[in-house]
Amino acid sequence: MRENVNANNKPSPDAVVIGVDFGTLSGRAVVVRVADGAELGSAAHTYRHGVITEHLPASSGPLAPETALQCPEDYREVLRTAVPEALRASGADPGQVVGIGTDFTSCTVLPVTADGTPLCELPDLAGRPHAWPKLWRHHAAQPEADEINALAEKRGETWLARYGGRISSEWQFAKALQVLREDPEAYARADRWIEAADWIVWELCGRETRNVATAGYKGIHQDGAWPSAEFLAALDPRFAGFVRDKLAHPLSQLGERAGGLTARAAAWTGLPEGLPVAVGNIDAHVTAATARTTGNGRMLAIMGTSTCHVMNSDVLAEVPGMCGLALGGITPGAWGYEAGQSGVGDIFAWFADSHVPPAYHEEARERGLSVHDLLSERASGAPVGGHGLVALDWHSGNRSVLVDHDLSGVLVGMTLATRPEEVYRALVEATAFGTRTIIGAFEAAGVPVEDFTVGGGMVRNPFVLQVYADVLDRPIRLVASEYSCAVGSAIHAAVAAGAHPDIHAASAAMGRVREETVDPDPARAAAYDDLFEVYTELHDHFGRGGSQSLRRLRAIRNATLATAGNGTEEGTR
Amino acid sequence: MRENVNANNKPSPDAVVIGVDFGTLSGRAVVVRVADGAELGSAAHTYRHGVITEHLPASSGPLAPETALQCPEDYREVLRTAVPEALRASGADPGQVVGIGTDFTSCTVLPVTADGTPLCELPDLAGRPHAWPKLWRHHAAQPEADEINALAEKRGETWLARYGGRISSEWQFAKALQVLREDPEAYARADRWIEAADWIVWELCGRETRNVATAGYKGIHQDGAWPSAEFLAALDPRFAGFVRDKLAHPLSQLGERAGGLTARAAAWTGLPEGLPVAVGNIDAHVTAATARTTGNGRMLAIMGTSTCHVMNSDVLAEVPGMCGLALGGITPGAWGYEAGQSGVGDIFAWFADSHVPPAYHEEARERGLSVHDLLSERASGAPVGGHGLVALDWHSGNRSVLVDHDLSGVLVGMTLATRPEEVYRALVEATAFGTRTIIGAFEAAGVPVEDFTVGGGMVRNPFVLQVYADVLDRPIRLVASEYSCAVGSAIHAAVAAGAHPDIHAASAAMGRVREETVDPDPARAAAYDDLFEVYTELHDHFGRGGSQSLRRLRAIRNATLATAGNGTEEGTR
Repeated sequence: MRENVNANNKPSPDAVVIGVDFGTLSGRAVVVRVADGAELGSAAHTYRHGVITEHLPASSGPLAPETALQCPEDYREVLRTAVPEALRASGADPGQVVGIGTDFTSCTVLPVTADGTPLCELPDLAGRPHAWPKLWRHHAAQPEADEINALAEKRGETWLARYGGRISSEWQFAKALQVLREDPEAYARADRWIEAADWIVWELCGRETRNVATAGYKGIHQDGAWPSAEFLAALDPRFAGFVRDKLAHPLSQLGERAGGLTARAAAWTGLPEGLPVAVGNIDAHVTAATARTTGNGRMLAIMGTSTCHVMNSDVLAEVPGMCGLALGGITPGAWGYEAGQSGVGDIFAWFADSHVPPAYHEEARERGLSVHDLLSERASGAPVGGHGLVALDWHSGNRSVLVDHDLSGVLVGMTLATRPEEVYRALVEATAFGTRTIIGAFEAAGVPVEDFTVGGGMVRNPFVLQVYADVLDRPIRLVASEYSCAVGSAIHAAVAAGAHPDIHAASAAMGRVREETVDPDPARAAAYDDLFEVYTELHDHFGRGGSQSLRRLRAIRNATLATAGNGTEEGTR
Repeated sequence: MRENVNANNKPSPDAVVIGVDFGTLSGRAVVVRVADGAELGSAAHTYRHGVITEHLPASSGPLAPETALQCPEDYREVLRTAVPEALRASGADPGQVVGIGTDFTSCTVLPVTADGTPLCELPDLAGRPHAWPKLWRHHAAQPEADEINALAEKRGETWLARYGGRISSEWQFAKALQVLREDPEAYARADRWIEAADWIVWELCGRETRNVATAGYKGIHQDGAWPSAEFLAALDPRFAGFVRDKLAHPLSQLGERAGGLTARAAAWTGLPEGLPVAVGNIDAHVTAATARTTGNGRMLAIMGTSTCHVMNSDVLAEVPGMCGLALGGITPGAWGYEAGQSGVGDIFAWFADSHVPPAYHEEARERGLSVHDLLSERASGAPVGGHGLVALDWHSGNRSVLVDHDLSGVLVGMTLATRPEEVYRALVEATAFGTRTIIGAFEAAGVPVEDFTVGGGMVRNPFVLQVYADVLDRPIRLVASEYSCAVGSAIHAAVAAGAHPDIHAASAAMGRVREETVDPDPARAAAYDDLFEVYTELHDHFGRGGSQSLRRLRAIRNATLATAGNGTEEGTR
């Protein structure tokens, strides 16, 4: 089945690769031509169990608050349905396929046996929540994360600064420690503790691999080592062997071949047995290949409900408040930086859904627009600063550069003449100011940001893009694909198949970027400098200790709701 | 016609008085029994010209921005229609009426000839804007107010501190200086410059009087003197004689008899010629008699779109940020304090009208509620602090205690779970915190606040009242009358007629206060202490110089809109 890659590693003109993107609620497969990245066919499959938060599939017992699990069989079902459907839609023959690659949400992580069987598929463990995969947004391990951070700070663990000074409750160690604490038997039965990104590759090629990206960003693997056994023992004596027993494994570089498709996986997908399978990867990071941003200093922002920023650099620096830093985390040999904004599109949606009066909804309906469209239209003509408003975009806390989930939103400058579209615009601007703050943090740390590309759902929002171009005073490049993650996985598959020499070359040949950029208007950009100064003053006052009022309000709220018998975590992510 | 007051100055049981309240858009007359304050009949008349902001009645020329004028004939029409209608509705005979009293918005001020004829009624001046009465909310004299304040500060004028350190553009001197500067001929033709409160009394009894209240609060009359000719000359040499030529006049105490009804006014009103007419008064201040708050330390808050606080005290102190202080300004012999909040009900209305989604409007409509009612219902059950929000109630600037109209609203603590009723509640709480700040300023200055009474439209809003009771941790007394200003004028009429010995006695006999109070809940009051600390931190940070961000945003907005060719003052009051 390698006939489509000739002796000089030049793919035949009709060679294709398949990329599969495992998201939060569904998986998407796309068939991409190796020569030029043309998307020939695609298909999506929605997970039958979605996100499991209330009770396990076969039990009625309620799950603990902040629990978010998934069902591994849902992932396999994507391979069995979306992959063959995408192939059919593409019109390509299975024989044309030269490789398959995958990406996954992260840190989505699960306990498995030595042969890769998820613990939740063992009959005697299926009823135990801690035997199931924990989705990235499982936030019930916050106490464990707090403990890890406190100990790491006390012991001066050098890796802590690589994560902006705080590891997240979403990541591998916090989640594993929660399992150990709450279900020691399930913990003991887990031979391996593995990212879903690596587990799905195991399912495809029958052998365990571990990719450098999830190891580096979510597994605290830095400078060739995981946290020490001494550190783990200080957390809990039973945790001392966690790395050695359940995590340690040679790491694979991104774009490498993990193995060949097993007979079982070949039967699921309808693809040839032995087909090259790429090493696992993270959804945001794999998209850098689609966006042609694998070069140093090329920042990619995946903008949707939240924003994830990924960027390669040849500079190693500890940028305050970044989410993570991993050597080879985006492409081999480069320092891969990740930063993020925890609320972006979901802040706009919150406002459009719950703070816009009936007349706007009616007009939008009559004109066949969304409320977002109408607000954008009404807001876009006004001069910069004419609304007199500045907001802080912390409705879901602040991921970068403050790394504080107890922060919350701020809006200043309202008068009785303030209109909904003005507040909406101030919120959009606030997220752009947040991005500018992140870029500024990189540059202040000596990590140059050369250009800026946007992927994700916001590429379809010209109003938001123009505000970003003006606020950042940079042209904005746009990812052209609707399936930018899956295409990125396909590009990695092409590299794993040897159809392109490396990710950079494959990205150059197969990447999907629009010709035109969204360009800043010089006058608006200059005007935004003034508003950004006000944003920065408020940002530092409320975020860097000038005022404890947001944290205090959060504490009052949590104490009040706890006393009142309600949940204490609504709206915090 | 004095047969209804017998030789011992005891009114006959059927003696009545008439009070007339001249508001911003209409005048209201009420017929009140002297013995017990029973309201026997009332009527209202809407001004035909309302507020004149676009062009004069007989001309199409556009008026300058921030201009707000009124037509004197509209005031007379209230006497010709509402007074006889109220009397008819009461069933009383004109012979039963023993006096008439009036109150007016203030500072509403006009230029008149020596016989009291408004300049705008002289044919050759009718087309000149500066010949017309300037309504209280005419804000076009801000440059003149700034000039007066700067000079007063420079010269160390002792009266400045009596007005919280700043006189307002709404007041007599700023408005007169604007006329002098912009229309010297109209200025020269004005023999007198007189408050509408005093002009309407002139219309009723045919002689000029000047009441101590408008002289003290709006006319810079302190310690027996107006600003000196030297001060005025330093403002403008042509202004040196302003007090001597156009303002100076013996002052009348409130509750005194200004004169007897003229034949002309008797014909308008259907009341007996010679009927005692009370000295003019201000709408908020006259209400203290209705509220039975003429005793020292009894604060009355007239709460509607904005709030005005009036309180007598035997203590003379310079309370930071009050609006004004006048000896005898509420009742003779006491120091009458005035403070205010420039945005209250209009902030709630702004939010309910423009920031509440369709589902709320639909539910309110289906259930026959107002949106305010629905928001109040949904907000009222939640525990204090459960929303995690604090707002600053400065959407119309801050009158007391910061005296800064360039401030604007602030809201902190939003999450994606924040609901409209929570923001609404935070806004209501913010105005209550604003009131608590004002009370605190009085007490810190050594002026005791013994109790708290609410009049105005908010007496019909149990949710708002309960929040105020809890935030202030005081029982709230409520004015019972729908016509609380007009009743106050009627009470003053009874004093002027000699039917009661003084305002206190008349207020005790005729005042209208509900039996029951709105009482604080101790647990909620304690919880509000925490939120009030956060409010105070934000208040001082944004209002007292910690941050210039609100002023900076206002400056940016004004500059932006000026460049864009729009007005620069929308939303500032």
